Amino acid sequence: MNYVLKNIPVRTEKPRTTGFTMAMDKGLSLRETEDFVDSCSDYVDIVKLGWATSFVTKHLTEKIAVYKSAGIPVYFGGTLFEAFIVRGQFEDYRRVLDKYELEFAEVSDGSISLNHDKKCEFISTLSQQVTVLSEVGSKDAAKIIPPYKWIEQMQTELSAGAWKVIGEAREGGNVGLFRDSGEVRQGLVEEILTQVPEERIIWEAPQKSQQVWFIKLLGANVNLGNISPSEVIPLETIRLGLRGDTFDHFLGEIKL
Amino acid sequence: MNYVLKNIPVRTEKPRTTGFTMAMDKGLSLRETEDFVDSCSDYVDIVKLGWATSFVTKHLTEKIAVYKSAGIPVYFGGTLFEAFIVRGQFEDYRRVLDKYELEFAEVSDGSISLNHDKKCEFISTLSQQVTVLSEVGSKDAAKIIPPYKWIEQMQTELSAGAWKVIGEAREGGNVGLFRDSGEVRQGLVEEILTQVPEERIIWEAPQKSQQVWFIKLLGANVNLGNISPSEVIPLETIRLGLRGDTFDHFLGEIKL
Amino acid sequence: MNYVLKNIPVRTEKPRTTGFTMAMDKGLSLRETEDFVDSCSDYVDIVKLGWATSFVTKHLTEKIAVYKSAGIPVYFGGTLFEAFIVRGQFEDYRRVLDKYELEFAEVSDGSISLNHDKKCEFISTLSQQVTVLSEVGSKDAAKIIPPYKWIEQMQTELSAGAWKVIGEAREGGNVGLFRDSGEVRQGLVEEILTQVPEERIIWEAPQKSQQVWFIKLLGANVNLGNISPSEVIPLETIRLGLRGDTFDHFLGEIKL
Repeated sequence: MNYVLKNIPVRTEKPRTTGFTMAMDKGLSLRETEDFVDSCSDYVDIVKLGWATSFVTKHLTEKIAVYKSAGIPVYFGGTLFEAFIVRGQFEDYRRVLDKYELEFAEVSDGSISLNHDKKCEFISTLSQQVTVLSEVGSKDAAKIIPPYKWIEQMQTELSAGAWKVIGEAREGGNVGLFRDSGEVRQGLVEEILTQVPEERIIWEAPQKSQQVWFIKLLGANVNLGNISPSEVIPLETIRLGLRGDTFDHFLGEIKL
Repeated sequence: MNYVLKNIPVRTEKPRTTGFTMAMDKGLSLRETEDFVDSCSDYVDIVKLGWATSFVTKHLTEKIAVYKSAGIPVYFGGTLFEAFIVRGQFEDYRRVLDKYELEFAEVSDGSISLNHDKKCEFISTLSQQVTVLSEVGSKDAAKIIPPYKWIEQMQTELSAGAWKVIGEAREGGNVGLFRDSGEVRQGLVEEILTQVPEERIIWEAPQKSQQVWFIKLLGANVNLGNISPSEVIPLETIRLGLRGDTFDHFLGEIKL
Repeated sequence: MNYVLKNIPVRTEKPRTTGFTMAMDKGLSLRETEDFVDSCSDYVDIVKLGWATSFVTKHLTEKIAVYKSAGIPVYFGGTLFEAFIVRGQFEDYRRVLDKYELEFAEVSDGSISLNHDKKCEFISTLSQQVTVLSEVGSKDAAKIIPPYKWIEQMQTELSAGAWKVIGEAREGGNVGLFRDSGEVRQGLVEEILTQVPEERIIWEAPQKSQQVWFIKLLGANVNLGNISPSEVIPLETIRLGLRGDTFDHFLGEIKL
């Protein structure tokens, strides 16, 4: 840090399993990627190339190399997995992961209907090749999954071999864990936390108010995802109680 | 593309007259411009320097050259045309187009009241110098133009020499083709399409939901405009059915 | 400017005391900072490193140097001052200002409860070391300060040695001077202006509609703050009547 402030929450250090920040890159150029890792590599634990943007991204091999050399693994968004599955191209998908020497992959069913046993089979198979992140929740705002099902799916996906499970929110933060308005489905989150270990969950939380809510509930070292590259530094300050939103939370109010 | 996915919608290729993407640059620096063309030049067909930002943009000549060398023509936003017209400086405007060796220009009346015959005269005159894009629709949310007038203006402007007509939406996507809320004026669009050939229209659609709406209505190769540089890659995936929003649209739902 | 347009509002020139633009950098990388000053240095008068982002910003010394060499002084957001104060580290804060050779500092109480005499004492002490900007208004949307108190605080803070006072709005533009919705508290602004000289105030106005409102009220050369780097060029065009929003304001409507 650039100077000393007393009583700052202690942050975990890389390689992190808690206090984890997953950033979403939806098409940065090669030089923008260099800029991003230059300023943020200490604060980013993994980068998702959002949904299937990797299909049309230029210099893909070089981009992945830039991230890797900064100690940041990369994975393809779950929608890409689904695009291969829906076309019956699972084996092709596995070859693509190898071609780009990826060490992580996401298994999701946000846009397709996938029998849950089949989903767990994909998790199990892929976990022999890479570290698997599995995602629970639909991208369709109309499909409300009740809390007991979120829990059941998270538990069985972890048992099937997922390293961590991700709570869906999309880039916008307006589905899955959140209402249309972006408001957190608090009851859902709290119920999940009674049954699934916190450190095994990454909460997608692209909006500032959502990040603040999770940090107030679970502390500086909650795992958060779908963070825009330009919001990584701001998020770090929120985790540390150094932005208005969590300033009081970590200190209590102090009268001078 | 970086890998093979079956049954992807066929996209037109450059130089495109359909499936056209017009991006809006509202003040990128020279190096940001280089980054943008490095990652997006295949997907961008023309760049508008938004409204009159070119007046205060540094390195204007070099920026235009960067775009040109990547095969992307540049034009000045219609508000700049209007700023010259309202000051009685049309001949100066023509000289500015020549000074910057521009091959395209926009004629619009979004901020000024311009007799429509006079507007068509400007289109006709300018079309002897450059390729003209003309824009229909007011930037004033209170000025509602009825559909028959949109159609009449589009038709007469095309007859006067416009290469394509643009449906107004501004950077925000909350006027012209759209309601304050960003919702598409569906009846307006559908009525226009009964009378004006689709390939002659560029729909300004800065918001994702607007892009999705047009792609669902008119397919992967609809002409869209006012796309933010950071949204060009995302838009391309929406055109290809590789983002949640259009994933089902191109495939139909598939049960596994 | 890149070409000649008649009857453009006359802008003040650097070093400005009116027509002042304060931009907010919330974590630009070093190269992004270079890009920003390359395209915007003529239009930016001072840069705030937002709230306490400087704590986690890489290459902080180099960033400050890039700004300085472009003639743009830098200061740390008021939340950082408050973070030091609340920990009883005022002397440490003063040393940090010296370490980074800063010539400006902000004194605020947006997140802490600070006796107003004590706040003025900090202003007075710091003004012997640097040029002080003091900020009035809470970051807590629930704390409504009545206009007479805004005025009283602004006046006493200027008397205590503040160079200018800043009206609070945060990055979002939804507290302090503005309602939750972003709407200006017009009565508050107008009442302040009856008692505090306009040139001594910087209005935080991150949203376009807020910038437009102030420019229509106070002209091209109003002092505005919390401008996002990507909005500096757009703001400059709004000041000059070269964007739809203020196009009519500076010209009156002209019939052709």
